[in-house]
Amino acid sequence: MTKRIGILGSTGSIGVNSLVVINNLISNGCDCEVVFLSSNNNVTDLEKQVLEFKPKSVYINNESSYKIASTNPNFSNTELLNKDEDLIDLVRRDNYDILINSFVGFAGTVPTIEAIKAGKRIALANKETMVVAGKLINELCDEYNAELIPIDSEHSAILQCLLGEKIENVNKIILTASGGPFRGYTYEQLKTVTVKQALKHPNWNMGSKITIDSATLMNKGLEMIEAKWLFRVEASKIEVIVHPQSIIHSMVEFCDTSIKAQMGIPDMKVPIQFALTYPERVKSSFVPLDFSKTPKLDFEKVDTNAFKCLRIAYDVLENGGTYSTVLNAANEIAVELFLKDRIGFTDIADIIEESLSGHISLNDFTLEDLIDIDTETRNKLKEKYKF
Amino acid sequence: MTKRIGILGSTGSIGVNSLVVINNLISNGCDCEVVFLSSNNNVTDLEKQVLEFKPKSVYINNESSYKIASTNPNFSNTELLNKDEDLIDLVRRDNYDILINSFVGFAGTVPTIEAIKAGKRIALANKETMVVAGKLINELCDEYNAELIPIDSEHSAILQCLLGEKIENVNKIILTASGGPFRGYTYEQLKTVTVKQALKHPNWNMGSKITIDSATLMNKGLEMIEAKWLFRVEASKIEVIVHPQSIIHSMVEFCDTSIKAQMGIPDMKVPIQFALTYPERVKSSFVPLDFSKTPKLDFEKVDTNAFKCLRIAYDVLENGGTYSTVLNAANEIAVELFLKDRIGFTDIADIIEESLSGHISLNDFTLEDLIDIDTETRNKLKEKYKF
Repeated sequence: MTKRIGILGSTGSIGVNSLVVINNLISNGCDCEVVFLSSNNNVTDLEKQVLEFKPKSVYINNESSYKIASTNPNFSNTELLNKDEDLIDLVRRDNYDILINSFVGFAGTVPTIEAIKAGKRIALANKETMVVAGKLINELCDEYNAELIPIDSEHSAILQCLLGEKIENVNKIILTASGGPFRGYTYEQLKTVTVKQALKHPNWNMGSKITIDSATLMNKGLEMIEAKWLFRVEASKIEVIVHPQSIIHSMVEFCDTSIKAQMGIPDMKVPIQFALTYPERVKSSFVPLDFSKTPKLDFEKVDTNAFKCLRIAYDVLENGGTYSTVLNAANEIAVELFLKDRIGFTDIADIIEESLSGHISLNDFTLEDLIDIDTETRNKLKEKYKF
Repeated sequence: MTKRIGILGSTGSIGVNSLVVINNLISNGCDCEVVFLSSNNNVTDLEKQVLEFKPKSVYINNESSYKIASTNPNFSNTELLNKDEDLIDLVRRDNYDILINSFVGFAGTVPTIEAIKAGKRIALANKETMVVAGKLINELCDEYNAELIPIDSEHSAILQCLLGEKIENVNKIILTASGGPFRGYTYEQLKTVTVKQALKHPNWNMGSKITIDSATLMNKGLEMIEAKWLFRVEASKIEVIVHPQSIIHSMVEFCDTSIKAQMGIPDMKVPIQFALTYPERVKSSFVPLDFSKTPKLDFEKVDTNAFKCLRIAYDVLENGGTYSTVLNAANEIAVELFLKDRIGFTDIADIIEESLSGHISLNDFTLEDLIDIDTETRNKLKEKYKF
């Protein structure tokens, strides 16, 4: 089957790995075509990608980067786009089948919704979409018969464990967490964590927002909320366990107590490829797990007294409504404040908690309501922190 | 769906656990019926099972036990059977759907074949059938549209990992081995192992033949050969890894390097129930895995220099033909000799190797050929050891 693919965020780590996956698929006989690429402002890398994959269109968000590309002869055979409405038009087109969306933050939501309305498969690396608008997204997927396939390793693991299984037979979804760089720290120790320390993550090479989320464990909190919507299970069925080696990417316990786990060395190419080939698999030349190099897998309970962000996310997961929109917005701002050295590491949780406590949750809401809540949450914090 | 079940070996550990599973299924709304039970000679336990499950028929292999049961009023509403041909007639009947076959040794093969010819589902705990006659059994299953579902935890784990997957996408089947009570022993240390030491197995409570096979790792060798036939994969795709905690029951690596593992506390009720409900699952009150009690999973390479039985089984697996018939027969006799203190622990492997080296393997063979080879192998050894 031909796979015609568009990538939002092609110069980021997910995007770059997606292109490696596409090359692997092509070299294994799959008929893959890169229809469009996009980046915020990385014209240098986009140029190389255009030369290699010859996409029909390229969207560049930053206007001056777009202008630079416009004068570059290597982009002359490519449709160059820059306006917001061009992006929406791009994902609505019927010249492609699969959208890989790795836009970071709530900004990734709009193209996802447009791709859903066009009935595409969306390989989703953007957590925030499901965290903020999971309920609405599911309703749209049902209405437009679109497929949302997770790209991050935990949700891909769960999807793989669920192949051939029924969701009503699931007892528990067990998300594994590396524990981040501060695993074992007390709350008091976490108070002294610096930006420099927090930007070092042991197992993955990621962007700075996600790196901080991994350090506070908010990343896992967002994943719990995402899992609730992706797999349509109750909050009470979702658990987190610390597994420092990050070899088991997540697990599912079924009603007969049988547990299935998906494993491998941490390599985002595996879940990216699975999102493109699901429910099939295609041979790859990725590095397989060698048990002699990882002879030991450890498991620990999460310390939610120290890692308050995860406890807060648990509560939001259970309470539902529009709390998760506030959680996500407040977390984005708090992480920015921390990265700018304006607040301490443990203040991130406090700021989120404060935002949540001031929020009156809605049970029925539209996307516009969510956008309003998102904006309001950010503005309140920006005002308070003169930001 | 009604599940009408017959159990061969109902007073052994698999049989007893099968009845617990059947009670669990009934209490979860499944329409299960025990149609027949059988035991070699344990009339006391059979009597209790008859009172509880009210089977139509009971087969008792031992003649004097059969006579004792015949005079017991608690068996008066039950058809009592004793002759070999009665057993064959029993498994051929159309008053049941699923045969649980936990007969030990090559003796389990005949009822399995008859049940296959009657188009039943066979929940198979008898390893030897597939080791000795896997090729023929697969041909029969295809011809009569019968289903063979493994009951032992390793093969059940693989079957569970393969749900929703394609067998041609399997890179590797990774059987986990506890390593037995002598894990870490050198060959020299194994030489001094006594029967008493060997009969203590850390994780499971099993019969003495299987316990010794677990200590020599021949159990895992037989499982490798069984896996080849059950899942119809090449020998080169089957591996063994030592995992002392026996929490991961086995794994499958797919062509995209993704590994799926099935886990749980060692409890044969889980694979037994899955064999009855496959491809569905039914709620159970079995004890789920608690990671706080097993915070660590270890993996080690198998030492095939010390555990020669496993190396021999690897060779047999690769060479195919009728070598596995010799392997199985020689192993049964060698284990008996060891249990009778006639030979040392490491002599088991030597005896098997000697039997194999004298064998000229057939590539085309009938069940009669296999029975002849089995008998001949046993007779030669019995003669040599005046046994």
